[in-house]
Amino acid sequence: MDNWAERVRQGDVLAISRALSAIENRSSDADAMLQALFPHTGRAFCIGVTGAPGTGKSTLVDRLAAHYRGQRKTVGIIAVDPSSPFSGGAILGDRVRMQGHASDAGIFIRSMATRGYLGGLAQGTADAVLVLDAAGKEIIFIETVGVGQAEVEIAKIANCTLVVLMPGMGDDIQNLKAGLMEISDIFVLNKVDREDAPRFEQQLKSILQLVPERDGWRPPVALTVATENKGISELAQDIAAFREHIERAPDRPARQLAYWKGWMLRLLQTRLTERVIGSSRGAGGSLSAAEFDRLAEKVAARKLDPFAAVDQILAAAGLDAQEQPH
Amino acid sequence: MDNWAERVRQGDVLAISRALSAIENRSSDADAMLQALFPHTGRAFCIGVTGAPGTGKSTLVDRLAAHYRGQRKTVGIIAVDPSSPFSGGAILGDRVRMQGHASDAGIFIRSMATRGYLGGLAQGTADAVLVLDAAGKEIIFIETVGVGQAEVEIAKIANCTLVVLMPGMGDDIQNLKAGLMEISDIFVLNKVDREDAPRFEQQLKSILQLVPERDGWRPPVALTVATENKGISELAQDIAAFREHIERAPDRPARQLAYWKGWMLRLLQTRLTERVIGSSRGAGGSLSAAEFDRLAEKVAARKLDPFAAVDQILAAAGLDAQEQPH
Repeated sequence: MDNWAERVRQGDVLAISRALSAIENRSSDADAMLQALFPHTGRAFCIGVTGAPGTGKSTLVDRLAAHYRGQRKTVGIIAVDPSSPFSGGAILGDRVRMQGHASDAGIFIRSMATRGYLGGLAQGTADAVLVLDAAGKEIIFIETVGVGQAEVEIAKIANCTLVVLMPGMGDDIQNLKAGLMEISDIFVLNKVDREDAPRFEQQLKSILQLVPERDGWRPPVALTVATENKGISELAQDIAAFREHIERAPDRPARQLAYWKGWMLRLLQTRLTERVIGSSRGAGGSLSAAEFDRLAEKVAARKLDPFAAVDQILAAAGLDAQEQPH
Repeated sequence: MDNWAERVRQGDVLAISRALSAIENRSSDADAMLQALFPHTGRAFCIGVTGAPGTGKSTLVDRLAAHYRGQRKTVGIIAVDPSSPFSGGAILGDRVRMQGHASDAGIFIRSMATRGYLGGLAQGTADAVLVLDAAGKEIIFIETVGVGQAEVEIAKIANCTLVVLMPGMGDDIQNLKAGLMEISDIFVLNKVDREDAPRFEQQLKSILQLVPERDGWRPPVALTVATENKGISELAQDIAAFREHIERAPDRPARQLAYWKGWMLRLLQTRLTERVIGSSRGAGGSLSAAEFDRLAEKVAARKLDPFAAVDQILAAAGLDAQEQPH
């Protein structure tokens, strides 16, 4: 284990890949490995990139990665697929485009799917970021698709979140969901060489004027044509400005404490709940997810009350509701 | 206990008050009482009402309540104060206005603050709704202030959520936060007798056009002057239309199952976490919240890894990470 962690720290590609697979499969090795890596983390800057399919997100990440590589910064990219129970699919296909980096040891690219019952997506992503951080990657991209609760959770992991849009998305910008406004630190309007771009840009900016400033920051709109490498260094400047903004923020220690409190509470709840309901992590709990569902169906039909249901779950785990464990 | 629950079911005001106090104080009686009431719930329609202070939310709820009383429907009102650790304050002051209903046994009004470490606000509110539902209230209002994660959680409890706005809110409608769009089933533009109302209404409607339909429903804008009882029956018609919409929805059983699964998981996690970290619920856990904070501070400073921290927490609870109970 120590040897494995040491190899990850040295940036060994096979060791990093194995570490991310262990996280993805929620293998029992993963926690020990993360634990060994943890003291060597805390230096990376993590950029979340989200947007609808077709907005050119992957190409944009590719070009930004090349930009940072040009500054001799090491880069890690994690493409998260929240919908698929299997890794790969469309995102893995996109990655084929990035094979241009294959011979560059300073960049690590990986698609990941995080399975599991208990909202493991955000935690799995946070774990993967720890690995790449320990491996010395200075800039880490997390690429996600669309927006939903999962993306909001992932945005909390990233230090800076880019929301990628393109002209002609659906009917005007109806697809610009309210949730995107909450999470975006920078908007990227990609494919601005399209003829409907100016109208879209104007609409976007007039909507953004209605959104209040957040902690002294108003999300700028960066204009790019990622396929032609246009606007990339300007976008990198926006990212640098945001990084400076948050590093100056007086509430930074309080935010970091809150981040780790959330992390620990999530880990604690996962540990406790897995012990009871079971998980894909092997050892499993005393009750299967299917049994949990059956209890919930009875509750929804008012044939069982939720307190009795939870008491049954705790009793099955040998954790009686009444007594404290010694 | 059975006698208490029976008195709640009969709508006894003192018994209901005592039940809500038990929930608010997270007393050990509360769960047994809720358990006894649960089989008698599931009939109420729950209306969430949120909006910034000063929008006239309380008066609006007051008038809507009177409207439903005029239809011989029984009404319960819970005003939630998420910010204050004590019940009362401004919201309780607002309630003074509603003393006009004091002699009406068909209406129950109560301000509530839900304390506690583990996001107890949403669960406390859900519990209070169960009590009023069991007490036979046909329409239950949940009144909250502003918008935040707490309000989003509470919106999930309500069957229908009204977002109350007024003309001249801040600089144009900059205060209309994106989060409000996600939770609102109906927008209420109150105080439309103000001179800047038409401009505000037009701005609001043009923003709403950009928001996509949700499950075949586009939130209407109801115009009211609550203090003069104007627009109230039209608003009640909008609410009735939304109720019909969701009761017809084909995914209703699936939604109800998901609701109760979330409820059970929350209860399970609360039970498990309270056992470990402790709570205001008396018996407490093996670790205080202050000790938890100290561990988190060490983690944030990278002096302790989060896995070791959680192992310490589990060990303090006599729940070793490695072995299964029994």
